[in-house]
This record gives sequence, structure tokens and C-alpha cells, in this order.
Amino acid sequence: MIESVLKQLDTNRDQRIERLCEYLRMESVGTDSAYDDQTRAAAKWAANQLADCGLAVDIVQTDGHPVVLAKTTDAPADAPRILFYGHYDVQPADPVELWTTPPFEPTVRETDSGAPAIFARGASDDKGQVMCFIEALRAWHDVAGKLPVNVTVMIEGEEESGSRNLDAFIDGHLDQLGADIAVVSDTSMWDDGDPAITYALRGLLYFDVKLHGPGRDLHSGVYGGTIANPANEMVKVLGQLFDANHHITIPGFYDDVATPGSDELEQWKTLGFDDSAWANSVGATDVYGEAGFDSLQRRWSRPSCDVNGLYGGYMSEGAKTVIPTFVGAKVSFRLAPNQDPAKTAASFVKWLEDRTPAACRWEITDWGQAMPVMVSTDSPHLDAARRAMTVGCGKEPVLVREGATIPVVGTFKQKLGLDTLLMGFGKNDDAIHSPNEKFELACFDMGCRSHAALLAEL
Amino acid sequence: MIESVLKQLDTNRDQRIERLCEYLRMESVGTDSAYDDQTRAAAKWAANQLADCGLAVDIVQTDGHPVVLAKTTDAPADAPRILFYGHYDVQPADPVELWTTPPFEPTVRETDSGAPAIFARGASDDKGQVMCFIEALRAWHDVAGKLPVNVTVMIEGEEESGSRNLDAFIDGHLDQLGADIAVVSDTSMWDDGDPAITYALRGLLYFDVKLHGPGRDLHSGVYGGTIANPANEMVKVLGQLFDANHHITIPGFYDDVATPGSDELEQWKTLGFDDSAWANSVGATDVYGEAGFDSLQRRWSRPSCDVNGLYGGYMSEGAKTVIPTFVGAKVSFRLAPNQDPAKTAASFVKWLEDRTPAACRWEITDWGQAMPVMVSTDSPHLDAARRAMTVGCGKEPVLVREGATIPVVGTFKQKLGLDTLLMGFGKNDDAIHSPNEKFELACFDMGCRSHAALLAEL
Repeated sequence: MIESVLKQLDTNRDQRIERLCEYLRMESVGTDSAYDDQTRAAAKWAANQLADCGLAVDIVQTDGHPVVLAKTTDAPADAPRILFYGHYDVQPADPVELWTTPPFEPTVRETDSGAPAIFARGASDDKGQVMCFIEALRAWHDVAGKLPVNVTVMIEGEEESGSRNLDAFIDGHLDQLGADIAVVSDTSMWDDGDPAITYALRGLLYFDVKLHGPGRDLHSGVYGGTIANPANEMVKVLGQLFDANHHITIPGFYDDVATPGSDELEQWKTLGFDDSAWANSVGATDVYGEAGFDSLQRRWSRPSCDVNGLYGGYMSEGAKTVIPTFVGAKVSFRLAPNQDPAKTAASFVKWLEDRTPAACRWEITDWGQAMPVMVSTDSPHLDAARRAMTVGCGKEPVLVREGATIPVVGTFKQKLGLDTLLMGFGKNDDAIHSPNEKFELACFDMGCRSHAALLAEL
Repeated sequence: MIESVLKQLDTNRDQRIERLCEYLRMESVGTDSAYDDQTRAAAKWAANQLADCGLAVDIVQTDGHPVVLAKTTDAPADAPRILFYGHYDVQPADPVELWTTPPFEPTVRETDSGAPAIFARGASDDKGQVMCFIEALRAWHDVAGKLPVNVTVMIEGEEESGSRNLDAFIDGHLDQLGADIAVVSDTSMWDDGDPAITYALRGLLYFDVKLHGPGRDLHSGVYGGTIANPANEMVKVLGQLFDANHHITIPGFYDDVATPGSDELEQWKTLGFDDSAWANSVGATDVYGEAGFDSLQRRWSRPSCDVNGLYGGYMSEGAKTVIPTFVGAKVSFRLAPNQDPAKTAASFVKWLEDRTPAACRWEITDWGQAMPVMVSTDSPHLDAARRAMTVGCGKEPVLVREGATIPVVGTFKQKLGLDTLLMGFGKNDDAIHSPNEKFELACFDMGCRSHAALLAEL
């Protein structure tokens, strides 16, 4: 049966591409209310596609953009159930003038390296990846009349604005979201070519840390040296966050970090990670990081801390001699598997409070916590995904981790007890969130075929 | 003769106030080219006043706003010459909506504490203080027919924009600016009431320090821990500028700092400086500063370093997980008398370069250096000023220093070899550079009388 389904996908390639282009023409910029009509239209369009695949579909209102929720009703009762997650909203297209072709007029043309690709906002993030799954469902439906497993599809419209209403939605639909495994297509292939299954993600803590000093900006000549300057104090405190070996100095910070096994570390070595290429690709002169670990460990299995922004006092051209009334820093942590976000957040806040400078006070805002995630690499679900990707891509996938965070994966684990298969078909140079976003047609084909095979393998 | 001159000032009080109001109606916002006509008109008006005092006046063009240059021609040849400095430009009046009466409609009314004052932009900084001197010249001219000493007056129009063209002007007019002593009225009385002569100022260094890392902003999940983050590195480096005792850690930084004599420190103690009042007046919970020194020493005789601003990366509401391509800091130093600006600037730049973080580079912009200034307190000129202020204010002035910087005073010393008498009649609460700027009529009277007496005493 799977052979017929794959043939159906190949035969209908032009139609698949045309449907993706139709989806990409919808300007579903969820973060901008000027696009509310088109964002809503994209939800409805995705719902219609899922109905065409034989699923019962509901568009569920939330306090923000609605969630498209679709379920099979005709699969065998004893078959497993897959929960698929994606989003129909896209990033803003600014700066529009940097696009070669207009962001909402999808165009098929070759990339610089000669690969045919669809260029449009959302092509890779996340409409293209969502359509891989939908086209797989459609092919099964068209060829077999029904799906071989139970499927639940949840497509939200607020991923690009922090999924503000998703937790509440999940809490309110726990009974409808039960499944055996979740599937999220929001990751990349390895090294721009090899299919990859991602089995671990880092978690996230994000803080806005303001330090308040005098009641107003002061003249630094009149007051300098006599009144605490929160900018001086901020750099003194945050400068203590790191030691000379680039370790994070918060007591107990590394206590719960899971150490990769020696087999795992050996497997990473076979991936042939190239430090110079990594640094050069982002215009850095060299890699950098925690002493005692290589770059893949630093990316994947070690926590990190980044000051994401500094602000306050005089920030423009030239000179203004001011002692600022406050300054602020954005400080975030990537958490390694087994670190607890709430515990780590509390220890950072305590660390700051223990260092409160004289005559100053902190204003600390917690902008979100997300769990790190690690999926067992010898589960039957992952084995099925591996076989499916081998069929779909013509090549066995490599197992990789990812340094970034996909909060919904942690949420699925916490609220639904679900592990997630991270099967991604994007490439690192897809320019998601940037001008000239693209999704290569070969990736689209591999994604559709792999998802179709996954339904059979599970 | 001085008695008649003082009487003339008293008799013509209403006319003096009206002339100051006329001056204040001119919207000479020198930093804004929309006000160029009015700024030029203010220069012409000041020139006319000086001509009325019997001086030969020239309005000298520069690359910016012109300098009013006036000289006596009829004083005794063997009399000393005073160089008087002031400025006719004023700060912008924004935010205009916070003014009780319009900024360019000078209004005489009582302050909150019941003192009659003129409220207008420039009332204290610097038109009111300049008019003290001009009215003294006028009274001498009207009563005696000529001035008892030689006078050179230089009034610039770019003080509020950093006196960009003043050095070049002075270099081009060295032969016309020779004098025995300079007089600058741009300081305040002590403790809001006692007349004061300021005999020392701190100098200034101001830097914009940028640290560049990767070639573009990076996703901190994907790259965090593997690529140098200039925001992390900036706080690590700048955090080392200060030790736990709030000393500046640059090697040799304090080597040249002049230590006040024990007599001087004793005199400061008699001023009754109140730490709590100082902190409370600016909404700080306490004073603060270098261990081993009291607040007046920290303000007046110790150098200080302030981070005046921090900027870079994500600076808005909420969260964005970015490794910034660069961050910047505004870093300034107040220099104690006898510190050398160029030498200290070089040692700071070297200190930064010695700490250049791996895979990062500095971009350091020097936004200006100004000399610290110290005038001997037992010179005949200062004695004359002290007697003049005692006559003019009815009370002997206290000797004070100032923590802020008046660059022109260092320039007079460097280029003309001139010491400066700093006789200021402003009050700390005059709200210069802020809405509802004012100059108290009692201060205006004391200033006119003191300057008149100074001409006699010199």
C-alpha cells in the first residue's frame, strides 16, 4: 500500500506544489492585527485541507487566533494515534525591499547552489513543513480511502507570537489530545543535506533584569562618585556570571545536567562537525565556549547563558554625561536535558538578589520558561521514524540534538505525557524569519514521502 | 565711585529686569537650525548691549554660530584686563507642556519657597548670569563714563552644542584674547544660599566603547555557548573596571591625583555637607562611593568613572533570543586636578585592548577630553573676587570646588595661560536644561553688584 501512496505523491507533485503556493499566498502575519483577516483565512484553508483528507475538523476560538483541531474518525480502533503539531501563522516579511520576489507571491526558482525551491514567507517555517504532513494524509486518503493510523492534527496561529494561548487551549482539550506519540516538523536536516531525527532540545529561561538607582537621571559631573550608578553596578554583577573558563558561576547550576553517554559522544564524532565552518558561516573569527567541551557538546548537551540585550542611560550618537536612573539587560539561559527550569530560574534570581548593589533595587521580569527535552533513541516510535525517513529520503537519517528550544515539545511531555518525534525537512540556510525564505522542492518531496511512510511504519 | 555704581544698579532694577526679559524672549536654541534667525538675533542683541557699555564690538563668524567679541578701548593702559566668557544660546525647551508659563515668555513670579524669580528658558543658563556682568559694565559706564579696568567679553553661541568651533576661534584670536584673568559665571552658589567662589573643577573623558562579535545577530538557541557573545564579554570586561571598594582598577589611574591639603579638608568640613540630604534630593536611598573618602572628597578631589549608557541587542519589551552582533557602552571619567586627560585616556584604551575578548574586536570612539582645573586660593585675583562678592552679596563667599567640568576654563589655561575666577549666582534648583528654568531676582541683584565690585577691586 505504501508504494502506491508514494507513487501518488510523486504523480501529484505539481498539484502539491500548487497547493503549497496557494497556502503561501495568504498573508497570515499573526503578530500584526492588520493581517487578521488573512490569518483567519489561512486557518480556514488549513482546516479545509484536513477535511479533504477525511478528518473531522474544528476551528476552535481562543483569546487570540484560533486553533485548527482535526481528528480521524475512521481508522482502526486498535491503531496508534499520532498528534501532529504545526502553525499557520508566519513571521512579518520586513524588510520587504530585501526580497528578490515578493514575500507573498511564492515563486519557484533555483537557489544559489542550483536547487529548485519555493521562495515565500512561511515556505519553510512552517507552512511547507505542515504541508508535508497534510499531503501525506491526503495521499493515504486518496489511495487507501482511509488512514492506517489514528491522527490528531493541531495547527495553531500564534507560534510566532510566543504561543500565548496554547497552554490554555491544551489544558481545555486534554481529553481530545491524547495520543501515543507527537510529531513536530520544525527542525532542520543535518549539515544541509542528510535527513535527521532530532532527539533532544535545550530548554529556555528568559529574564528582563532591570536595576534601578537614583530617582531620575543625574549629571555625572555633579554626582559622579557619590551616588550609585546602576549601569556601573549592572556590569559588575553580570560580569560575575561567567568565570575565565566560560563556566556559569551560579552555585549548583550544573548539578542536574545530564551527561551524554560515551556511545552518544562517539556517534557525535562521526557527524564530522567543523568548527571553522561553523564560525565562518556567521562571520565569527572562531568558535568559543566552555572549557573542557567541544562545540557539539556546547551546542547540545551543555547549558549556556547569553545576555541578549543591554539598554539604558544614553544610547545615541555622541556624549551625554548622565548617571542613568535605571539600566536593563535581557538575560537568557539554554538548559541542558534534566535541568529544571523553575529551580534554575529561582537560583538565578537568588544569585542576583544576593548581589543587590547598595542603594539599588532589582526589577526582574520572567519572560518564560521552557523545558529541555530528551527522547529515548531506542523507542519503537523512533525506530519507526528512522525507517520511515529511510524510505522517504532514500538515505538513513542521522540522530542529532538541537541547541534551540521548541516549547510545545516540553508542554506535550508535561501536560499529555507524550514523547515527540522531531522530523524536520528544513535546511539551515532556509532564511526563516529573514528575507528570501525558501523551502527546497527536494525537501518538500522528502517530507511528504517520509510522513507517508511514518503512517505505515507506526 | 563703587557706591554710586551700586546705587545705579539698585535704582535701575526694573529696567535691568526688563532688559533680561527682552533677552530671554529671543528663542536662541542654538542646537536647532529652525531657530537660527533668533539665535543670530540674540548674538546681535548682546553685541548692542555691550556697545551701549562703551565697548568696541565685533560679531565674528565661525563655521557655526558667531562669537560676540567686545573690548574696552578707553580704560587706563596700566589697568589689568579681564576676559569675560558666557554664551547666548540656550537649551531646547522640550518638553514644553511641562512649563507652567511658556519658556520664551519670561514671567516674574514667586518660587515654591516664596522667592521672586524670572521663569524662562535660559534665565539662569546662561543669559541671566551674562546679564549680571553686562549690567555691571553698563552701570560703571553710565556713572563713571568709562570702566575702571580693561575688559574683553567673549560670548559664544554653541555652548549647548559642545562649543564645537570655540577652540578654532580662540586659536585664531589669541592676540585679541590676552588678559590677566578670566571670569566665568556658570556655577552655583553653595547650599542654595551662600555666595561661593569655585576654585577647582574636575576634567572629563568620554568614550563610546563598542564590542563587535559575530557578523550578524544570531539565534541564541542554535549558537549559544559556541560563538562569543559581545554582550556577555562587555559586562565581563567593564565589570572589572571597579573593585569591591569602588576604586577604579586601571593601573596607575590614581598616580597623578592631587591630594587636598589638610587645611583644605578642614575647610570643607566647615561647609556642613549632609550626606542624607544629598541622596534624598535625587531619590537615592544613600550616598555611595570610593572607600576611604567622604562625599565632598568623592565629588571634588577624587576622579570617578560612570557608565553613562548601555545599548545593543534586543532592547524592547519582551523576549528575543539573540546573540547580538555588537553592543556598546558610553563610559566617562571625571578627572581630579593634576590628572592628564590624554595620558588617562590612553591608559583606559590600553586597559580595554589588554582585555579584548576572544573572537571580538573593540571600536572605541573618543568623544572629548577636558582638563581638570585648579586655581590658587591665595592669588590677588581670588582675593579681589572674595572682597567683591562680600560687597555684592552682603556676605563673605565660601570657597568650593565643583565635580562637573567647564571645558572652556581648561582651554583658557592651556591656550591663553589664564586662570579663571568662577563666580556663579545660580542655585542648584534653577532647573537648567529642564522645564521651568528660573533665575531668582535676589541672585540677579547679587550677581550685578558683585561684578560691579569686582571691576573696582581688580
